[in-house]
Amino acid sequence: MADSYLFAINILRETTPLVQCLTNAVVMQFSANVLLAAGASPAMVDTPAESEEFARTASGVLINPGTPSTEQYQGMHNAISGALAVGTPWVLDPVAVGGLSQRTEFAAGVVEKHPAAIRGNASEVVALAGLGAGGRGVDATDSVEAALEAAQVLAARTGAVVAVSGAEDLIVSQGRVTWLESGDPMLQMVIGTGCSLGALVAAYLGATKNSDITAHDAVLAAHAHVGAAGSLAATRAARPGSFAVAFIDALYEVDSATIAELCSVREA
Amino acid sequence: MADSYLFAINILRETTPLVQCLTNAVVMQFSANVLLAAGASPAMVDTPAESEEFARTASGVLINPGTPSTEQYQGMHNAISGALAVGTPWVLDPVAVGGLSQRTEFAAGVVEKHPAAIRGNASEVVALAGLGAGGRGVDATDSVEAALEAAQVLAARTGAVVAVSGAEDLIVSQGRVTWLESGDPMLQMVIGTGCSLGALVAAYLGATKNSDITAHDAVLAAHAHVGAAGSLAATRAARPGSFAVAFIDALYEVDSATIAELCSVREA
Amino acid sequence: MADSYLFAINILRETTPLVQCLTNAVVMQFSANVLLAAGASPAMVDTPAESEEFARTASGVLINPGTPSTEQYQGMHNAISGALAVGTPWVLDPVAVGGLSQRTEFAAGVVEKHPAAIRGNASEVVALAGLGAGGRGVDATDSVEAALEAAQVLAARTGAVVAVSGAEDLIVSQGRVTWLESGDPMLQMVIGTGCSLGALVAAYLGATKNSDITAHDAVLAAHAHVGAAGSLAATRAARPGSFAVAFIDALYEVDSATIAELCSVREA
Repeated sequence: MADSYLFAINILRETTPLVQCLTNAVVMQFSANVLLAAGASPAMVDTPAESEEFARTASGVLINPGTPSTEQYQGMHNAISGALAVGTPWVLDPVAVGGLSQRTEFAAGVVEKHPAAIRGNASEVVALAGLGAGGRGVDATDSVEAALEAAQVLAARTGAVVAVSGAEDLIVSQGRVTWLESGDPMLQMVIGTGCSLGALVAAYLGATKNSDITAHDAVLAAHAHVGAAGSLAATRAARPGSFAVAFIDALYEVDSATIAELCSVREA
Repeated sequence: MADSYLFAINILRETTPLVQCLTNAVVMQFSANVLLAAGASPAMVDTPAESEEFARTASGVLINPGTPSTEQYQGMHNAISGALAVGTPWVLDPVAVGGLSQRTEFAAGVVEKHPAAIRGNASEVVALAGLGAGGRGVDATDSVEAALEAAQVLAARTGAVVAVSGAEDLIVSQGRVTWLESGDPMLQMVIGTGCSLGALVAAYLGATKNSDITAHDAVLAAHAHVGAAGSLAATRAARPGSFAVAFIDALYEVDSATIAELCSVREA
Repeated sequence: MADSYLFAINILRETTPLVQCLTNAVVMQFSANVLLAAGASPAMVDTPAESEEFARTASGVLINPGTPSTEQYQGMHNAISGALAVGTPWVLDPVAVGGLSQRTEFAAGVVEKHPAAIRGNASEVVALAGLGAGGRGVDATDSVEAALEAAQVLAARTGAVVAVSGAEDLIVSQGRVTWLESGDPMLQMVIGTGCSLGALVAAYLGATKNSDITAHDAVLAAHAHVGAAGSLAATRAARPGSFAVAFIDALYEVDSATIAELCSVREA
């Protein structure tokens, strides 16, 4: 059913999934507020001593090496171990991978540890797909076509749902390609809208894990929730300070009907 | 005098206490803005090399191990030493204590170092009271009754004022129990409203240290300030993004008359 | 030409300079949003492993030791090396220097490494000027006169443009002293307005590096951009939560005409 992703938001709000975010310090506050407004519960437990035990009870885990200390890297490894031990879905956001050496090496390692989803922009997904595959690596173009091919390579190799954020979002899993038209360019003017989308992907995956919703639809639902909220916010605010406020309000406000109205989904 | 806590806000604004926050990265910005809007001055000095010297000149110190690195833990120990050396009141926020091992051990240690106040939710206070007392530990229920008993145990053992945040707030010290009705459920939808309340408790304790206001009333005043601001903000905004903005505005705006009008205080 | 600084904002928006911020965790999110709204692009790459390589491609670098871990200090040293290697302008914000020992020692060292600009308040600039000069150090008064003398000493010794934030801002370089009247006292009620100004100074220096705009005018332009936005925001919001939102909106909205109207510049 093409619109089954629309039911996911109801499950999110009924279950209030607990999302463990190991993410960069720039977007911690915003990501927590995005999760709360959308209907999830945030926890930023990221230390080596605690991240594994917490991942065993969390509904979903986000790994985003945006400003990673040595300890946070270790916390990320431990959280992934905890998540894998009990089947908690975890999401990789390969922020700036391809452009910076340490995080590129980190991502190349953990991408093989069965992330449920990978979310990035075109350049990051292209870079990640090229790693360890004898491939094009970071010199690849970041055109939509390159991103589609890279996402398919990544999805086939890792089993993850791969999402590429852009003017149109692209959601790819083995055997399925979905394009999502939604959102507003003003989303690029507020820090953390991409990073918090990664957190929301973990929330949707956790919420729908034991439901009829597929992982592909869960990832699509997270993107549609953010996209619809961005579209709605843009009707109310034209400058980035007030847009950021309106975006949080809209995440809280939209429901499946609003999302259906504000998003255009196309299976390719 | 039952209403003497209402004078504390005037002292806060006259003295602009300098509050040193060793707190989690998720809420640093929000806590600083809460302190500024309320009438205090924030400083997030939390490194091992500088936290002790700073605690000697600060008006109050907050210890909140929400996302603690090894260095920040050391910084917390040093700040407590500096505070104790000169009599600066310090506040313990036992965030997620009981649920995570490392911070539980940390809190069990520092709670014996004469915090002026402890502020947490019911589960955290119950867990903290059970530690080292051969007690119930983290398996305790978090009912209001359990929290009251736990708060009384903690207050008797440590000499601290113990505050439990909830639908109604509970302020307990040796020989006194106060219930505060104020605030709005929307406060739960904005990250950092609890953590920044801990910072504001340190501000009120620092501001009133050399006044006629008791520590119990200072802690009550901080909760009433936040509660009244939450109530006022809820009359102006019904969604979390705009509520967060209205809450900061309201912290700046309320005075003792507004607080008296919007809060209901009951001595038990 | 006295008004040549007014052209810098157009260059900023045409070039969208990439600004690497090694700054404190309290203001990372706010600084990123300030840069985005003003017309620049933020990146908070601050780890030892990545900060040098990133500084080689950034347009400008900000060094602000507000809450510095051992690793972030190392990251700062590496970023400065990378910046110097390729001529990327870097900015020193000596936050709380003079009042705290570790960062004072750090600042005394790096200030000799050719910062393009130094931005602080009067006390910080006075303290920094006294360091290593056998001078007055931190016991200096922070009057405007002392700040002017200190800024001139610093500018002569380091070759940097030195900016002192205050009721009036002071921009000093060798042979030139400019006073800027703009802004609003409400800017002091929002955390990060000073720290993000340091980031914006790096943005303006990076944007105008290969233009006819002098470094002095670039620093002045950053201050005028923030000052005009503060003035405009104050006409729309009288409390700090809504003022912060209006300030970000205004940074996005002002142009050279608005800045000319809202700022008063005086060469001394």
